[in-house]
Amino acid sequence: MRIAVFAGDGIGPEVTEQAVRVLEKLDLPGLELVEGDVGGAAYYKHGHPLPQQTLDIARSCEAILFGAVGDFSCDNLERHLRPEQAILGLRKELGLFANLRPARVFPGLEDLTTLRREVAQTIDLLIVRELNGDVYFGEKGIRTLEDGRRQGWDMMSYAEDEVRRIAHSGFKAAMTRGKRLTSVDKANVLETSQLWRDVVIEVSAEYPEVELSHMYVDNAAMQLVKNPGQFDVIVTGNLFGDILSDQASMCVGSIGLLASASLAEGSFGLYEPIHGSAPDIAGKNLANPMATILSAAMLLRHSLGLEAEAARIEAAVAKALADGIKGGDLGGSAGTREIGDAVVERL
Amino acid sequence: MRIAVFAGDGIGPEVTEQAVRVLEKLDLPGLELVEGDVGGAAYYKHGHPLPQQTLDIARSCEAILFGAVGDFSCDNLERHLRPEQAILGLRKELGLFANLRPARVFPGLEDLTTLRREVAQTIDLLIVRELNGDVYFGEKGIRTLEDGRRQGWDMMSYAEDEVRRIAHSGFKAAMTRGKRLTSVDKANVLETSQLWRDVVIEVSAEYPEVELSHMYVDNAAMQLVKNPGQFDVIVTGNLFGDILSDQASMCVGSIGLLASASLAEGSFGLYEPIHGSAPDIAGKNLANPMATILSAAMLLRHSLGLEAEAARIEAAVAKALADGIKGGDLGGSAGTREIGDAVVERL
Ligand SMILES: CC(C)[C@H](C(=O)O)[C@@H](O)C(=O)O
Ligand SMILES: CC(C)[C@H](C(=O)O)[C@@H](O)C(=O)O
Repeated sequence: MRIAVFAGDGIGPEVTEQAVRVLEKLDLPGLELVEGDVGGAAYYKHGHPLPQQTLDIARSCEAILFGAVGDFSCDNLERHLRPEQAILGLRKELGLFANLRPARVFPGLEDLTTLRREVAQTIDLLIVRELNGDVYFGEKGIRTLEDGRRQGWDMMSYAEDEVRRIAHSGFKAAMTRGKRLTSVDKANVLETSQLWRDVVIEVSAEYPEVELSHMYVDNAAMQLVKNPGQFDVIVTGNLFGDILSDQASMCVGSIGLLASASLAEGSFGLYEPIHGSAPDIAGKNLANPMATILSAAMLLRHSLGLEAEAARIEAAVAKALADGIKGGDLGGSAGTREIGDAVVERL
Repeated sequence: MRIAVFAGDGIGPEVTEQAVRVLEKLDLPGLELVEGDVGGAAYYKHGHPLPQQTLDIARSCEAILFGAVGDFSCDNLERHLRPEQAILGLRKELGLFANLRPARVFPGLEDLTTLRREVAQTIDLLIVRELNGDVYFGEKGIRTLEDGRRQGWDMMSYAEDEVRRIAHSGFKAAMTRGKRLTSVDKANVLETSQLWRDVVIEVSAEYPEVELSHMYVDNAAMQLVKNPGQFDVIVTGNLFGDILSDQASMCVGSIGLLASASLAEGSFGLYEPIHGSAPDIAGKNLANPMATILSAAMLLRHSLGLEAEAARIEAAVAKALADGIKGGDLGGSAGTREIGDAVVERL
C-alpha cells in the first residue's frame, strides 16, 4: 500500500502533515507514504511544477494525497511553469477524469453559510466534473491576426468517448444516491454541449432507474442559489464543473471541511481539500486541516477499499467538531496542529 | 423617436403589452412604436427566428424593447432556427456588445432571496458582460475524427479591440459608481483570458481613479455566495458573464423585477427583462410585467436621454410595490394586467 503525498505550496504542507499523522495513527499494515514535490515548491527546487520524478512516484503508488498548489511569486512565469500546471498535469498524465465533489452542510454548522438555514439544510448534492477534456486541454495560444490585432484563442471540444465515460460516472454515482442526475451544458449555444447532451441521452438507456434531466449552465447557477436542495447528482464538463462546484461548495459554507476525489479508471485516485494554497495564512498554524484529513478518508475508501478505516477518520473529525474543536474558518480558534491532535486523539 | 417592440414567445407578449401601455401613458411627443416578430413566434410565421424584416425594423429605430424568446416546441429544430438565435442574431447584427445587468435588492423585498437578509442587503453590483465575442460566436461544429469518433467543438477567442471596448464600458460604469472594477477571467487556464487580462490592465492606465482587481471565474462564483457586497462593477466575457449575471440576479431574489440593457456604440440599445419566456405560465395573466416596465425605463434613460420620464416610471413601480401590488413571483397575487394598471395609475 504505497500512497504518494504531494503537499505543494502555501498551507499545503501544514495541512498535509496533519493528515499524514492521522493516517500513521491508524497503523495500517504495509502502508508506505512517499513524498514528492509539486507546484511552486517543485519549480523552485527542480525548475518545473511537475517534475518527472514526481510523476514517477505517482505512477508507483495506489493513490495520491494532495495538499494545494499556487504561489503569487509564480504569477509572472510562463504558463507551463506555473504551479497550477502540476494539478492539470497530474489529471491528464494519470487519466484522472472524474472529479467528485460532494456538498452537504455538516450538522451543527448551518450558520456558516450565507444561505438561510432552512435552505442550507436541504443541500445534499454531488458534482461529478469531467477533468481531462474541454477547453482546458484543447489547443490554445495568442496569435497576431492578418490585420495586426492580437487574439487569444482556446479550442473547446469533447469527443463522444470522453462524454460517455464521465456520463457513466454520473449515472453510477446517482445509482448509489437519490437516482436523479442533472446534466449541465450550454447546448443552446455550444456544439460541444450538443454532442455532450446527445451522448448523455444515449448512455441513459443503460440506467433506466435514474431520472435524467438537462439544465443550461446559467440556469444551474441560478438554481444553486434558488433551491440547491433540488439536486442529487450533477454531471458536467470541466469548465462548467469548475465554476459550479466552487459555487456549490460555498453554499455549504465550511470550505475548510470539504474534500474531493479525482478518479482514474480502476481504483487510482488523487484526493485533495477543495480549498487552495492560501499563501496569506501559510506557516502560521491557522489553516484548518480537516478537509485534508477527510480527503485521506476518501482515499482509504475509494482507492484502498478500507471502508472501516475511512469511517473511523470521519467519525473522529465529526467528534472533534461536536466537541467544539473548530478552526478560524469555522469561527473557532483551534490551530492547525491542535486540530490534528484533536482528531488523532479521537481515532 | 421610433422604438421597436419585439415581444417574442411565452410570456413575452403579455409583459411587453403592459410596458407599452406605460410608455403610451407618458404621452411622449413623436413616440412611435413598431412591432416585429422574433423567436419561435417568428419562426412559425416566417420560417426564421430573426426574419430580415425584423432586422430592418430594428435598424430603423433608436432602441428595442424586447420581451423574451424560447419555446419547447422548437427544441428539436436545427440550431440556426431555434428561438435563441433571435437574441444572439440581434446582438451580433446590431453590434450590441455591452450587456449591463444591475443587481440590487429592492427595499422591502429582502426576504425573497435565499441569502440571509444581512447579506442580501449588501448587494449593489453591476455586471458588464461582453456580448459579441467569446465561444458564442466562434466557429463550431460536430465532426467525425479520423478514428471514427464524433467530436463537438467550439472556438473560444477574443481579439484585443473586442476586449478594449468592453473594458472601457466597465471602467466608465465604475466611474459613475463606486470606482471599483473586478475583471473576471480564467487566466490560469485560458489564453483567451490571458489576453483579456493583459488588455484590461492596458486600458486601466486611462482610469487611474478606478481600483482594478482580477478574479478567476470559479472564485467569483464563490465570492458571489460568500460576500456579494464586496463587488461594485464586474466586467467579464460572454460565457462567464452569462453564468455570473444569472447567479447574481438570483442572489437578489426578485428576478421578476430585474431589467437589463444591451448597448451598441452610441446610444442604440436593446432592453429586456432578465427572466425568460416561461412557457409554462404563458397566457395565464400570471407573469409579472415589472421587469419589462423597468426595461422600458432604462430604454428612455440610455437610448433617448429621457431621464425624468425614466425616473417617473421607476417611481411608479416602486410606489406600486410599496402599496403591496405584487406578482406571484414576489409572493403576491396581482395578475399581469392588474400590475400594469397599478403602474399606469401611479405614473
Ligand atoms: C487551479 C485550477 C487550474 C483548477 C481548475 O480550474 O481546474 C482549480 O480551480 C480546480 O478546480 O481544481
Ligand atoms: C438564450 C441564450 C442564448 C442567452 C445567452 O446565453 O446569452 C441567455 O441565456 C441570456 O443570457 O441572454
